[in-house]
Amino acid sequence: MTHVHNDPAAFKDQILRGFAAAYPAHVERVEGASGFVRAGGPGEGKVSLLIGGGSGHYPSYNGVVGTGFADAAVLGDLFASPSAEQVYRIGRAADGGAGVVLSFGNYAGDRLNFAVAADRLRADGIDTRIVFVTDDIASGPAEEPEKRRGIAGTFTVYKIGGAAAEAGLDLDGVERVMRAANAATFSFGVAFDGCTMPGADAPLFHVEPGQMDFGLGIHGEPGISSAPWMPASELAAQLVERVLAERPEGVSGRAAVLLNGLGATKYEELFVLFGDVAALLADAGVELVAPEVGELVTSLDMAGCSLSVTWLDEELETFWTAPADTPAFKRGNAVATQRTRPVRREVPEDDAAAAEEASEASVAAAAVARRAVAALHATVEEHKEQLGQLDAVAGDGDHGIGMSRGATAATEAAEATQGGVQTVLSAAGAAFGDRAGGTSGILWGVLLDGVGQGLGNTEPVTTARAVEAVRSAVQKLQTFSKAEPGDKTMLDALFPFVDALEAEVRGGAALGPAWRAAAEVAVRAADETAALTPRIGRARPLAERSVGTPDPGAVSLGMIVSAVGVVLDDLRPAS
Amino acid sequence: MTHVHNDPAAFKDQILRGFAAAYPAHVERVEGASGFVRAGGPGEGKVSLLIGGGSGHYPSYNGVVGTGFADAAVLGDLFASPSAEQVYRIGRAADGGAGVVLSFGNYAGDRLNFAVAADRLRADGIDTRIVFVTDDIASGPAEEPEKRRGIAGTFTVYKIGGAAAEAGLDLDGVERVMRAANAATFSFGVAFDGCTMPGADAPLFHVEPGQMDFGLGIHGEPGISSAPWMPASELAAQLVERVLAERPEGVSGRAAVLLNGLGATKYEELFVLFGDVAALLADAGVELVAPEVGELVTSLDMAGCSLSVTWLDEELETFWTAPADTPAFKRGNAVATQRTRPVRREVPEDDAAAAEEASEASVAAAAVARRAVAALHATVEEHKEQLGQLDAVAGDGDHGIGMSRGATAATEAAEATQGGVQTVLSAAGAAFGDRAGGTSGILWGVLLDGVGQGLGNTEPVTTARAVEAVRSAVQKLQTFSKAEPGDKTMLDALFPFVDALEAEVRGGAALGPAWRAAAEVAVRAADETAALTPRIGRARPLAERSVGTPDPGAVSLGMIVSAVGVVLDDLRPAS
Repeated sequence: MTHVHNDPAAFKDQILRGFAAAYPAHVERVEGASGFVRAGGPGEGKVSLLIGGGSGHYPSYNGVVGTGFADAAVLGDLFASPSAEQVYRIGRAADGGAGVVLSFGNYAGDRLNFAVAADRLRADGIDTRIVFVTDDIASGPAEEPEKRRGIAGTFTVYKIGGAAAEAGLDLDGVERVMRAANAATFSFGVAFDGCTMPGADAPLFHVEPGQMDFGLGIHGEPGISSAPWMPASELAAQLVERVLAERPEGVSGRAAVLLNGLGATKYEELFVLFGDVAALLADAGVELVAPEVGELVTSLDMAGCSLSVTWLDEELETFWTAPADTPAFKRGNAVATQRTRPVRREVPEDDAAAAEEASEASVAAAAVARRAVAALHATVEEHKEQLGQLDAVAGDGDHGIGMSRGATAATEAAEATQGGVQTVLSAAGAAFGDRAGGTSGILWGVLLDGVGQGLGNTEPVTTARAVEAVRSAVQKLQTFSKAEPGDKTMLDALFPFVDALEAEVRGGAALGPAWRAAAEVAVRAADETAALTPRIGRARPLAERSVGTPDPGAVSLGMIVSAVGVVLDDLRPAS
Repeated sequence: MTHVHNDPAAFKDQILRGFAAAYPAHVERVEGASGFVRAGGPGEGKVSLLIGGGSGHYPSYNGVVGTGFADAAVLGDLFASPSAEQVYRIGRAADGGAGVVLSFGNYAGDRLNFAVAADRLRADGIDTRIVFVTDDIASGPAEEPEKRRGIAGTFTVYKIGGAAAEAGLDLDGVERVMRAANAATFSFGVAFDGCTMPGADAPLFHVEPGQMDFGLGIHGEPGISSAPWMPASELAAQLVERVLAERPEGVSGRAAVLLNGLGATKYEELFVLFGDVAALLADAGVELVAPEVGELVTSLDMAGCSLSVTWLDEELETFWTAPADTPAFKRGNAVATQRTRPVRREVPEDDAAAAEEASEASVAAAAVARRAVAALHATVEEHKEQLGQLDAVAGDGDHGIGMSRGATAATEAAEATQGGVQTVLSAAGAAFGDRAGGTSGILWGVLLDGVGQGLGNTEPVTTARAVEAVRSAVQKLQTFSKAEPGDKTMLDALFPFVDALEAEVRGGAALGPAWRAAAEVAVRAADETAALTPRIGRARPLAERSVGTPDPGAVSLGMIVSAVGVVLDDLRPAS
């Protein structure tokens, strides 16, 4: 139960405020952004490590900003990815001129938002690398590590990366070391009960009383097996056996070991378990190097724990045992790097497009675009409750709220922005992505911006170019998201939509009728996501998990393209 | 809910084992004892700080053993005082030749056990001081700080004391600084829900859902007021107002501030609350010095938090901000003190008494003493369930189990020990105190040992000397416990018993009949403790708290003296 909060919608901002008040000697809030850099700003000529993800996992991520660890952290709403805009802003503030590594656990929303932010940072001339962590062996097969989620092993990978950057390695070096650390890190967890979001009166998910759910994710993603309660010694054997089964060939046997508590599983329980774990690891010839027992990656008040093992070579061991000084984790005698580069607070105005003289046709299209965004907004508001209820079946029930937040911001931005259709749609997309957050936010942000870029501010708006703009935006989305058909995301409605749109136009239909016909296809495709086995769900009895409901992202996409179709007859394409 | 354990009876020992495995670079387990000293042993010529209490409060106490903080920690069973024997053993191991400060929160069981241990350490030539912490303003009036319990403010007092010892202050100096720190520390807490002991399927106590219980203690001791849920900003105002109300005159305004989570109230909630707390403190002109937000003194998975403020002068601030390096708390760059004195592992045999040739009469009395201890044991076993049920009404239900553990050990020790009645009863008392733990353990330990010392090994065992031995043991108990009649402890049955015994003997009765008459008085006095308002209870609706049940310690005392009376006719006193 989360008892302490004010307005649940302001929870994340109030976490940031309180954290900044507690640790001014360690961190500095980046003004107007959801995150922190080290107090004093980035080190000149030093690679910076920016870590982040949803909030609710303290001390991850802001708790480990400091000497020898992260240079900066960015936080999204509870369990939701930070927006690309926020990652970008903190990334700029964190850069010391030697480039930035963005690192995070492998979740769809984070992958998308950090990828978009990396593109923007690179466009600003900041060399940016991405290392996502895939330590959770329960979430994918060994042969497909990129399908594995990041859980408590993220802590070790970030620690090692932060120490490598502190030691003066260049960007290639830090990236290489972090990839090596990730490849050497294996975690396996168990859950006993779920956590409760602020303001909610029931947990986000449940584990059956008297049961343990192995491999259950830190946001309640489904586990791989359930078992009745067992004593700590048997639990230790289960965790150790699973993690050691993936011990790579040729490793030295020296390992960084974490026994992580998720929030309500307390230190005393962790030490009882660690006594058994340490004995089993010693029996298996593992030498523990500076192990940690405690709360490193939490999930509010979730009950459960995980074992992480990072197999160390000489280089990884040096960085794992190196000094660190952060609010929540300190080791040895850390000496702060000299800071000489001021924090870059301002985000440059992207006036290239705005400066262009928009053509009359593009300004006319921009007016239609504003009405399309307004139609999107009205539809989202109308179906907000329904989308929330759909999402509550398999998710955390905030899809309606997130879409509403994004659509409201997009409408305001579109109304406030003058110029051609690209300028207006890009502004709407940026606002949507930043305010909605999470996966839906970035998908809609990229989609709106992508369509705008496809249409441009000067060229004539033809039916063919409109279709091409949608297609290129969808391709951009696929590139960022790496989503495949059947992944049960909004793309499962979007791909059939754009195929149908192209086919209709190729068959001679005008844009409006073609769009409306394609929208019907999208709505049907959204319904069909109910028949798919969910790849990401929440902890429920295993038997219930494949009885799908439609994906709320796909459903809202169907609704929105249907609503937008109504205004497109006014576009009056040039040919 | 405590999910991870093996045998709940072995929980504490398994915590110790796991902790030792996790942090060998920081701590060293004192062989055969329930605690730790710093790795490498005590510093030659340095004052040592030994802290302790019941387990279940990690990182208190073992988590903060290390450079700049505690030199050693001793742990009792969950929420139960460590035995005097354990405190004594760890105290010997921790001494570096410059004396030891024993520090703990102000609870009856800890007061007793640490006082007895201090006497033994002093008898070994180790200068020993006691500083108990009284920061909880909800548990007693400002004019009677010695009635106030120790909660999260213990952390600040120990930190400051540890730094003072590290800085080389002598024993007087460290004691003085710690007393000043305690006098400057004020805490106020709120609870949202109780914690569950390992193996139990229901919490030890409850807070009504939707309620907040202000001032509720970390073991569920009753609070001072309940209120419906309120937002974090209002909660912050309540905590700040109460703590600032006790701001001493003339303080500088600079303060060490802790916002402590009890276990299930997580970091995100604490930061939200701290944002409001910090703003209110700033408004009141308080300057925060190195504040801490997190879990410092926990109660397993209890939900709740507390605010602690320590008003700093220059000296206290120096020690509060000084470096520290412990498993769970680190600050700045701590340089370990050189260790040159080996850990004293052996406890000296107390053979003064054993070496004495016991008189025939004393050896005969020793045989009766063995049968008395056996009668005590049989009575405890017979009523174990009943005592547990009685204790569960207002306590944690372990009185029967604890007494059984102690009585079993006492019987074994009495059987295994040869010699006079002092030797046998002292051995029984030591075993009882060590194995029973908590308050009952030390009370019975002191009582058995005290009677033995009163009788001696050489002198004739007369009725008058027997009565005098009981009286002197009871006086010793009162000196240690500082208990007053009406405090609702076993002393409420013991005082009337010894008064009645003396009166009966003075009236000419023989020891056996006098004892049995006095036992009846003790049983009635035990029943009458039900009519008293409990001074220490558990969280229940306020209305129920004064509807007392008899104190289990008083009830078991009545039972035991009744049972022992049966064998005393065999004592055949010399006159």
